[in-house]
Amino acid sequence: MEAVAASAKPTLRVAALSGSLRNNSWHHGLIRAVLTVPCMCGAAEELCEECIPGLRIDHVDISGLPMANPDLETDGGDGFPPAVEAFRDRVSAADCFLFASPEYNYSVTGSLKNALDWASRGTHKCWADKAAAIICAGGDFGGGRASLHLREIGIYLDLHFINKPELHIRAYEDPPKFDDKGNLIDAQAKDRLRKVLLSLQAFALRLQRKEN
Amino acid sequence: MEAVAASAKPTLRVAALSGSLRNNSWHHGLIRAVLTVPCMCGAAEELCEECIPGLRIDHVDISGLPMANPDLETDGGDGFPPAVEAFRDRVSAADCFLFASPEYNYSVTGSLKNALDWASRGTHKCWADKAAAIICAGGDFGGGRASLHLREIGIYLDLHFINKPELHIRAYEDPPKFDDKGNLIDAQAKDRLRKVLLSLQAFALRLQRKEN
Amino acid sequence: MEAVAASAKPTLRVAALSGSLRNNSWHHGLIRAVLTVPCMCGAAEELCEECIPGLRIDHVDISGLPMANPDLETDGGDGFPPAVEAFRDRVSAADCFLFASPEYNYSVTGSLKNALDWASRGTHKCWADKAAAIICAGGDFGGGRASLHLREIGIYLDLHFINKPELHIRAYEDPPKFDDKGNLIDAQAKDRLRKVLLSLQAFALRLQRKEN
Amino acid sequence: MEAVAASAKPTLRVAALSGSLRNNSWHHGLIRAVLTVPCMCGAAEELCEECIPGLRIDHVDISGLPMANPDLETDGGDGFPPAVEAFRDRVSAADCFLFASPEYNYSVTGSLKNALDWASRGTHKCWADKAAAIICAGGDFGGGRASLHLREIGIYLDLHFINKPELHIRAYEDPPKFDDKGNLIDAQAKDRLRKVLLSLQAFALRLQRKEN
Repeated sequence: MEAVAASAKPTLRVAALSGSLRNNSWHHGLIRAVLTVPCMCGAAEELCEECIPGLRIDHVDISGLPMANPDLETDGGDGFPPAVEAFRDRVSAADCFLFASPEYNYSVTGSLKNALDWASRGTHKCWADKAAAIICAGGDFGGGRASLHLREIGIYLDLHFINKPELHIRAYEDPPKFDDKGNLIDAQAKDRLRKVLLSLQAFALRLQRKEN
Repeated sequence: MEAVAASAKPTLRVAALSGSLRNNSWHHGLIRAVLTVPCMCGAAEELCEECIPGLRIDHVDISGLPMANPDLETDGGDGFPPAVEAFRDRVSAADCFLFASPEYNYSVTGSLKNALDWASRGTHKCWADKAAAIICAGGDFGGGRASLHLREIGIYLDLHFINKPELHIRAYEDPPKFDDKGNLIDAQAKDRLRKVLLSLQAFALRLQRKEN
Repeated sequence: MEAVAASAKPTLRVAALSGSLRNNSWHHGLIRAVLTVPCMCGAAEELCEECIPGLRIDHVDISGLPMANPDLETDGGDGFPPAVEAFRDRVSAADCFLFASPEYNYSVTGSLKNALDWASRGTHKCWADKAAAIICAGGDFGGGRASLHLREIGIYLDLHFINKPELHIRAYEDPPKFDDKGNLIDAQAKDRLRKVLLSLQAFALRLQRKEN
Repeated sequence: MEAVAASAKPTLRVAALSGSLRNNSWHHGLIRAVLTVPCMCGAAEELCEECIPGLRIDHVDISGLPMANPDLETDGGDGFPPAVEAFRDRVSAADCFLFASPEYNYSVTGSLKNALDWASRGTHKCWADKAAAIICAGGDFGGGRASLHLREIGIYLDLHFINKPELHIRAYEDPPKFDDKGNLIDAQAKDRLRKVLLSLQAFALRLQRKEN
């Protein structure tokens, strides 16, 4: 007898973080362009639902976190302010990460660094041993220097970044990449974004094989 | 009649910034060890007053700044929240900078990055074309990776860092470098700190010569 | 009837490269300490044979390569001088890499960079999509800044570096780590080196799972 | 009556190094575009002679250097192979440096790193305490990642890089920047190059003021 079920890929939960606090940030727009779950940033877009079966992407908001300060930790370093606890839970629940990172002064924003640091504290390492990808938009190198810093930060966090493709969108060059609300409107950039997600998915699935 | 003598070196105003928000931070302690002006961090120490004539060092506190967000800017990008305005004024008034930077996850802290970014905004570039030095304490490389990131951030800010000496204090190695209040207690580290300040002073004076 | 043999871990071929050209280099010594295949560097050591079943480590010598120069390439960019061809073949044959990298002036050596560049040329990307680990010895940070540069170079080469453990041996601190021939003589360093290899092995095996 | 002599700026000797070994390298072309002294690379160009009084720019060739290897040093570390001695003399004689650096795999070339290392050896530090500027051409970021690595290498060499302007020429974008011999043919790029040299000149002159 037969009836072998089709084995589908497991669904990967992707936590998407925007390093910007601006309302109309391009980096919020990049995340909106791939969201599969409605969030405060706006309505879900169609990109990922149609293109990448097997990815469930959530926006994890970093805007409400206090500045990282070990004096705010309790319980011998394993207790955190409520907003931090909630953030850490969402990071821990993810299988992999999509960082939409602006470049401020050749590095990541203070608010993104702050979020990265909060979830690195305590005995439970929320980021550790998970796959990640970086997408940037900006002038000049399109945020490329921020991505270099984020990769170095990720060494200690024990993140495994995909190498290719890299997506650094030169947002000031024609044709326009974003509208004035920060929505991604450029078809080529959307396609490159989709390829980043496919690469992240493939890399995360490879890494899920543990030694046995 | 009298002849008045001797031309002393001009006094340089050094703004000292600690990247930590902890009360008993080593990096506050490093700054206390060089302060010539009383501040909220504690009483002034003797190191600099006796050792380095010509330097007037102030602690510029970064703990009260909001998270950098261009949406908070007014006046076409040249107006800032009051705490940011006050911070920018103190940065602008300095001749050079001493960064006491912890290393969090192989980079600077979110709060230091946030402060650097706020003072880089608007038409007046508060950091530009001034000399700077970095001092760090930590495990492993003693904060050395944070100093590499800070130097790259400084390219865009147009800071001119001294190259030598570098001061990365391995704070967990014997003999103890700090007491439990974060005060610097190690004589050798104090001496190295003094040499950093002398190098900063010499470099800042060289840079004050503009083209003519 | 048949008995099916127990499936053992597959043997991974590790190409070990030393970035130094010195005869008594510590970095040759680090490689000798893990070799399972005799080579020009000296007799094989016992470390790996006893400790890490499943790894076959070869020293791939970089000392005979000419300086990288695209003018030396033939065949539309896919032909190389004989020494380069031989080197590229050995890199291509490896499953993963162990880089023993000195730090010269805060970066990798010119000779290591040269070797990395030669094997990155042409249509066949010899390094691509393979796991790698870095081991360093030196003063100060024990070669740690070279490892940061090597990781950034690896982004474009598409290498996947292990994050942990990192091995940066402070070679000038007591107890002695190397003898005057460059042999690794410190038991703790040998143990840390073994853990690097175990981590590399585990990571390489995870990555061998491709999408299907 | 008196005749007051016109005070001219002192002439600064600029050593220009190309990190490429290709005959028709863009980076040779960048240097040819600023040369005031005839060299093996080709005839001197007009750019600098007309535009920047006070700079005397020489091309210092790195193509004949052996691979850096401390075993080749004699005289207790202060003797070097003849080609290295000659190179070191030319570096020592310069007041400041212009690096024309390709980006190979997100870093400087092996041959440039090799040259930097050779002149850093021994008791006489040939690079130390001098101003420098970096110019790059390439795809993507126009060589920008190589310039970041070169700046970090320069920390230990004790080079003082200008921060602005940066010149990273995207050589594959229209309009064409170089002809097929590597000659710089783009007027806008030439103008930006001139501004780099003016900034280097001003910075080097400021740094020539030593403490007194």
